[in-house]
Amino acid sequence: MVETQPNPAIQKLYNCIDEKKTLVCVGLDSDFAKLPAKFLKSQTPQLDFNKWIIDQTQDLTAAYKFNLAFYEARGEAGWAELTASVKYLHDKYPGIFLIADAKRGDIDNTNQAYATAIFDELGFDAVTVHPYLGKESLAPFLNRKDKVTIVLCRTSNAGAGEIQDLMINDQPLWGVVAQKVAEDWNANHNCMLVTGGTYPSELASIREIVGDQLDFLVPGIGSQGGEVKEVMAAALNSQGAGLLITASRSIIFAPDPRQAAQDLVAEIEANRPTK
Amino acid sequence: MVETQPNPAIQKLYNCIDEKKTLVCVGLDSDFAKLPAKFLKSQTPQLDFNKWIIDQTQDLTAAYKFNLAFYEARGEAGWAELTASVKYLHDKYPGIFLIADAKRGDIDNTNQAYATAIFDELGFDAVTVHPYLGKESLAPFLNRKDKVTIVLCRTSNAGAGEIQDLMINDQPLWGVVAQKVAEDWNANHNCMLVTGGTYPSELASIREIVGDQLDFLVPGIGSQGGEVKEVMAAALNSQGAGLLITASRSIIFAPDPRQAAQDLVAEIEANRPTK
Repeated sequence: MVETQPNPAIQKLYNCIDEKKTLVCVGLDSDFAKLPAKFLKSQTPQLDFNKWIIDQTQDLTAAYKFNLAFYEARGEAGWAELTASVKYLHDKYPGIFLIADAKRGDIDNTNQAYATAIFDELGFDAVTVHPYLGKESLAPFLNRKDKVTIVLCRTSNAGAGEIQDLMINDQPLWGVVAQKVAEDWNANHNCMLVTGGTYPSELASIREIVGDQLDFLVPGIGSQGGEVKEVMAAALNSQGAGLLITASRSIIFAPDPRQAAQDLVAEIEANRPTK
Repeated sequence: MVETQPNPAIQKLYNCIDEKKTLVCVGLDSDFAKLPAKFLKSQTPQLDFNKWIIDQTQDLTAAYKFNLAFYEARGEAGWAELTASVKYLHDKYPGIFLIADAKRGDIDNTNQAYATAIFDELGFDAVTVHPYLGKESLAPFLNRKDKVTIVLCRTSNAGAGEIQDLMINDQPLWGVVAQKVAEDWNANHNCMLVTGGTYPSELASIREIVGDQLDFLVPGIGSQGGEVKEVMAAALNSQGAGLLITASRSIIFAPDPRQAAQDLVAEIEANRPTK
């Protein structure tokens, strides 16, 4: 039973992209150790910092991505500020697409608890997951037609190739993962792939494998060294769309975060292929 | 610079195993929806349930394993009760080995935050991690000589083979992971592997690959259908040791959890090979 329409959660992302005319996703990797000094006196430093970033970037970004690690590192207080940050977005800027960059992946029974935590308790639209335990384990995420599951395919880190480049017959592991997600795991039309902007040639190959069937979340631009020009040349689908370029540290810890977000939007637009 | 002694955290596990003469690890997968009715009236139901389980099993178990999903599913309150449960163990039963079954795996910068959360903020001795992003990404865990990193190798779930059985030349992916961890990632002698008890023949192959170099955390016994007899025949090292058999639901939600733990200890001892 393959559906032909995008699921409501992916449609929510498309609406954000269309309305704001941006492919940017701002990553709220609000590492306590890197917060500007003025926030450190607050009782809720990560929440206050996030509000400050959100208020000055919300018209420039199609989505916000929260990396849960930076909140868990502060324990109960961090979890409370993560929850409050998401609530702030729901209340003040409803409609914006919210990604939990949690990179979860456990057995079915346990993934059900993670799905409850991330989709229902915290209220995210999407979650990033590891493919290592296979489709069967991911059912609690994949079965949620109202939510988006973003599968790690080719990650942005320097050592990504150690496991991901292993060859299965004539295809690297990242290619096998891309193909499985496109052809099988995406039956509810609610999957995306994480494809690092630091590897443009792999990005182009993954686009070739999945065609227009899957959209990409592309990290690695900015602090990690990926180039917008190369990503735009490699990753767009046949409609000139199908990707979300996420930047975290290079925006939120810039001297002027709004300017950094504006610059990224402009750089992306400047690198759209001419028709 | 390869060290020849087990690291202090693995030595802590060995001490627990030797003193209590048990290979059991009790998994505190304290799913709120499954708690006995008498705990639901409490202000801190997961904490109170955990204390009740801990007090009646602590002399029978070498370690406790917390699956973070079941706490995150209750948001801030769950995180607080996770923290308090670990503190209860530190205060009342110091010395027992504590595993965060978090199955984390992100880029280096982010894994540093997870290591802070799990090792320093929560105070665990060990964490489970995904291998998909490679050794480079795991440095914040692997570099912690005072802590143990337990890498997912062959997981216990029904669909584990979809990705893990993919063949790299003549070796399945789980074999490549086992070999890499044994020969390279374990330079600080602080790694273990997750090898599911539901796949005894893979367990035996992994023991063959890694010899006595790595100990195993073996889930899948009990509710998931793995058999102690088969695990004991397949997974022991040349010293008749080198594994920790973890059971969660089949102990903590048994009518008599202490009896269930005692039965598992007895079943393991009954299946030790005769010399």
